[in-house]
Amino acid sequence: MQSFDFYNPTHISFGEGKIAELDKLVPQDAKVLVLFGGNSARSTGTLDEVKTALKQREVVEFGGIEANPTYETLMQAVDVIKQQNIDFLLAVGGGSVIDGTKFVAAAALFEGEPWDILLNWGANVTQAMPFGSVLTLPATGSEMNSGSVITRKELKAKLAFMSDHVFPRFSVLDPSKTFTLPERQVANGVVDAFVHITEQYLTFPVNAPVQDRFAEGLLQTLVELGPKALSEPQDYDVRANLMWVATMALNGLIGKGVPHDWATHMIGHEITALYDVDHARTLAMILPGLLDVRRQGKQEKLLQYASRVWGITQGSDDEIIDQVIEKTRQFFEQMGIQTRLSDYGLDNSSIDTIVAQLEAHGMTALGEKQDVDLAMSRKILERNL
Amino acid sequence: MQSFDFYNPTHISFGEGKIAELDKLVPQDAKVLVLFGGNSARSTGTLDEVKTALKQREVVEFGGIEANPTYETLMQAVDVIKQQNIDFLLAVGGGSVIDGTKFVAAAALFEGEPWDILLNWGANVTQAMPFGSVLTLPATGSEMNSGSVITRKELKAKLAFMSDHVFPRFSVLDPSKTFTLPERQVANGVVDAFVHITEQYLTFPVNAPVQDRFAEGLLQTLVELGPKALSEPQDYDVRANLMWVATMALNGLIGKGVPHDWATHMIGHEITALYDVDHARTLAMILPGLLDVRRQGKQEKLLQYASRVWGITQGSDDEIIDQVIEKTRQFFEQMGIQTRLSDYGLDNSSIDTIVAQLEAHGMTALGEKQDVDLAMSRKILERNL
Repeated sequence: MQSFDFYNPTHISFGEGKIAELDKLVPQDAKVLVLFGGNSARSTGTLDEVKTALKQREVVEFGGIEANPTYETLMQAVDVIKQQNIDFLLAVGGGSVIDGTKFVAAAALFEGEPWDILLNWGANVTQAMPFGSVLTLPATGSEMNSGSVITRKELKAKLAFMSDHVFPRFSVLDPSKTFTLPERQVANGVVDAFVHITEQYLTFPVNAPVQDRFAEGLLQTLVELGPKALSEPQDYDVRANLMWVATMALNGLIGKGVPHDWATHMIGHEITALYDVDHARTLAMILPGLLDVRRQGKQEKLLQYASRVWGITQGSDDEIIDQVIEKTRQFFEQMGIQTRLSDYGLDNSSIDTIVAQLEAHGMTALGEKQDVDLAMSRKILERNL
Repeated sequence: MQSFDFYNPTHISFGEGKIAELDKLVPQDAKVLVLFGGNSARSTGTLDEVKTALKQREVVEFGGIEANPTYETLMQAVDVIKQQNIDFLLAVGGGSVIDGTKFVAAAALFEGEPWDILLNWGANVTQAMPFGSVLTLPATGSEMNSGSVITRKELKAKLAFMSDHVFPRFSVLDPSKTFTLPERQVANGVVDAFVHITEQYLTFPVNAPVQDRFAEGLLQTLVELGPKALSEPQDYDVRANLMWVATMALNGLIGKGVPHDWATHMIGHEITALYDVDHARTLAMILPGLLDVRRQGKQEKLLQYASRVWGITQGSDDEIIDQVIEKTRQFFEQMGIQTRLSDYGLDNSSIDTIVAQLEAHGMTALGEKQDVDLAMSRKILERNL
């Protein structure tokens, strides 16, 4: 096992009706900016439920945070905070709203141009406003981590930052709030969580059986429950378990002491920034080809994944790996998510554009051994055409 | 899944050489009381390594915390804190030293008689001194939780308390510090962690597949690595993985959203308080009989445990349960830990005494359904004679 530091102070309040506990979780005298996305927070009644739970506290609303939250929109929230002397932020939504709130929390107290936070991966964040979240869409794990991904439209750039200062103080996870989600968002969430896990698991072995078994347990649970979440959208336990998987998939735990391979996410971010494809769909269109191209370096873990998650043990090593890559692709397709670039109207010329953006953003040494260069990224994309 | 709250702010610094990071973890201007147990902290050089890492900070030593830390000893540490204006505590040792330090941290700021903390399970703790730990013995999980068990000799009482105020600020886990542990302590640690897991897992199903699979993964890892820890005491990876299992076994994670059955611990505490038997050994002499007596209520989880942890699937349900209880007993015996009361010189008259103490301490409704009354506890003890 590799050495590591683990720290995660976010308080999770999990279960039906837990929004009422906001009254205990938010400081009594706070002036709260409630940040949310589109109209669903209002139309589902969640926004009203949140405001009721906040009781006497002064509340200002800031809606309109996009699916891939933009610097342009979020800087407007920073202006509102300064104009209205806001002292607590509350994100109500999915990963995009929470990621956006993290940026706002850091940007509001940042000296200088806040875009520099992204250019420095958050290393220059020294403080942030306190904030919590009410999660309505299980997917990104943002509710219990210190990472955030922000898009700047004018630059067609989608970049990440991390800082211990932007852990949510608390996150309220009420699985019943996900009953009304569109199928597309549920499917996206399952695939996003799935790929978060594989990126911390499908690398090379370092003798870390706890991390491996935790990752495998989460993947098995997604494989079991993902299709049920689509066919039985009102099943509380299915939604509760998916919600907890998505949180555990990216709260730092399964990734401690093991190598990581975030190449799928990094290539995917370029595709979203260029072509506005849903984040999870970009992952589904990259991971299968990446596992195929990178099968040699990942051989031991791919065989373990095949055996423990999918029960595949028959055949030569290469045949087993072929089977498990195909199983993974089929799982994404079963969730209604297509897995080829061509399914999304992308072609060879798009690959040129994507690779050029990877180069522009310095993404030239990706993967668990930093050996995914631009040529390798091109090969991965071509394998998924 | 049941509703829950999860909160665990302890920073874990894990790996060989991590003691050097104390300089970053402990406030620069702290006056530190270093608490430890017997002579091994000094003779192994760990105490010196800790003091070197603390650099210029003023350090006062407090040794002699017992294997089951006593109120009598710990109140002396409280006196030292007050006399010497200590403002930070550092536990160097295993679960007993860390549990003791938690009590000291709360008692030093407690208004009134600190034994009341135990009588109230910690509900009356409103503040505590800041403290960290350097773990040298993987077992209890105390390094990453807010629980503590304290013995008061004059009352022959061993009671527990919990409070969010006594999470360690940090814990340093250096697996190489466990190379010199006596076999007996390594074996005790493995069994202690094992039973912590079963007490949060072997109850009744509530549709919580993530918690189940995490618990099973930890148990499988203990079964694989426990014997190796005895046969290959210098194997870093074996010790590292055991250390991480023991921490994960009782940091709150696997127990969230599921029922618990702490009957084995509660009965075991009485045996330790009465007869000074090692804590883990009391667990090993209770759990197999408890699973046997309680097999009906635990049937579904016992069958799952048999299949997933031990690969036992052949036979009638009762035969499978017989086999898996026997496997569990054999595992403890393989670790060198006997599993019968009579192995420790206890007999029917001892059972009378133990049951009387359970009654005196109000332990009359134990188990996941609070239906383990004194008669049931007696039956469990008799089954293990």
